[in-house]
Amino acid sequence: MTGEPAIISSAAALLIGNELLNGKVEDRNLGPLARLLRSLGIRLQRSVIVPDDVTAIAREVAALSASYDVVFTSGGVGPTHDDVTLAALAQAFSAPLEIHPELEAMLRSVYGGACTATHLRLARAPRGAQLKGCPEVRWPTLVMRNVWVFPGVPELFRMKLATVRYHLRGSEPLHSVVLRLQLEETELTPELDAVVARFPEVEIGSYPQWSDPTCKTEITFDAVDAEQAEQARAALIQLLPGVLHS
Amino acid sequence: MTGEPAIISSAAALLIGNELLNGKVEDRNLGPLARLLRSLGIRLQRSVIVPDDVTAIAREVAALSASYDVVFTSGGVGPTHDDVTLAALAQAFSAPLEIHPELEAMLRSVYGGACTATHLRLARAPRGAQLKGCPEVRWPTLVMRNVWVFPGVPELFRMKLATVRYHLRGSEPLHSVVLRLQLEETELTPELDAVVARFPEVEIGSYPQWSDPTCKTEITFDAVDAEQAEQARAALIQLLPGVLHS
Repeated sequence: MTGEPAIISSAAALLIGNELLNGKVEDRNLGPLARLLRSLGIRLQRSVIVPDDVTAIAREVAALSASYDVVFTSGGVGPTHDDVTLAALAQAFSAPLEIHPELEAMLRSVYGGACTATHLRLARAPRGAQLKGCPEVRWPTLVMRNVWVFPGVPELFRMKLATVRYHLRGSEPLHSVVLRLQLEETELTPELDAVVARFPEVEIGSYPQWSDPTCKTEITFDAVDAEQAEQARAALIQLLPGVLHS
Repeated sequence: MTGEPAIISSAAALLIGNELLNGKVEDRNLGPLARLLRSLGIRLQRSVIVPDDVTAIAREVAALSASYDVVFTSGGVGPTHDDVTLAALAQAFSAPLEIHPELEAMLRSVYGGACTATHLRLARAPRGAQLKGCPEVRWPTLVMRNVWVFPGVPELFRMKLATVRYHLRGSEPLHSVVLRLQLEETELTPELDAVVARFPEVEIGSYPQWSDPTCKTEITFDAVDAEQAEQARAALIQLLPGVLHS
């Protein structure tokens, strides 16, 4: 729990749950995770949703864990039959699924004599899993190798993100500026192409806005070097004289 | 545009855009797609978000197209440099990217003499792509093999979903019933396990509710056979006597 945050570069998210795919529930966790990682300078490069299926989850965990510095999972960690994330992690890493002694002790201290076998399902962990804590969060986060395991309940997911902020940092935070224009994308594409070609170090995004009377297209400029982002924005403004922007 | 809808079983979604991964924008398209597919009896089995990168998109399109009956993409179809979905489709299926004559004719009829090279970027399509229309939607949807290409702008995405409703049907619609309980998951897990074991044909989901004073856990029962779903729900009620439910 102490020491400097670990420096990482790439991340992936794995959202687990039939309810996200069958339309019963809309995911509310990726947005907060994406914004946190961005603020830390960590690049979220892929997000996958899979159903509550041990084999599907295990295959995805193995693939993402091998390709990205850190993987964040959401969902499938409760006590019921459809909570299979920890079994899938065990399968992905060929580790036995056990009762984690520290989690068991915590559950017994919370529930005392009322602690049931069902409560102890919440202490399951693949052998080798670590617990990561931080001052703001009472319950630790289970981390297996480079996979951080979060609950799917949005209120708990967001609360536990503080643990990520405490332990991880990106290598190169991005600086971002925005240009909001009263032009359609088709009216600015050649000029934008010229700026894209001139500033290869700046990641430029163009996003049509359909429900905003004050803006038809939003252009974003992201770069490790804040000055480059500003220069790219200024260059586009210069190529599009007389347009409204804020 | 005529004839009976095609009967399909499985589907995947591919959401494309840096903005979905860097936290600038939260996806709003998966929910409407998932609900539509569910209403049609089509199982959405996987959803992936990738950045605006031709190679990453092409790899994902190829993998999803080979594994699922139909793939729906969202995003990356505008005229700007970061709109690379059609180039990626061309790469995934080893087809040249061309100007589609029918799309070109539609654009020229809309823009007339004001039609620019930028507008014609909106007519790009991999060779062999089809256009699918329906009475409610003016602009056709591009379909390459089993990949349906939708825009990322949520208003347009939702509008064009009518084309899916017109052309596709699932093989086995699911019937669903819900039980809302004032019990924690840990207070009902053994009873729920018994019902899960007794009704293997019913997909049962258990969802803790953290912000609803009227319900602590919502249990859903889905089955092709509506009576089985009802019976599973009744069986759980019987095992949990005296609980509040609606």
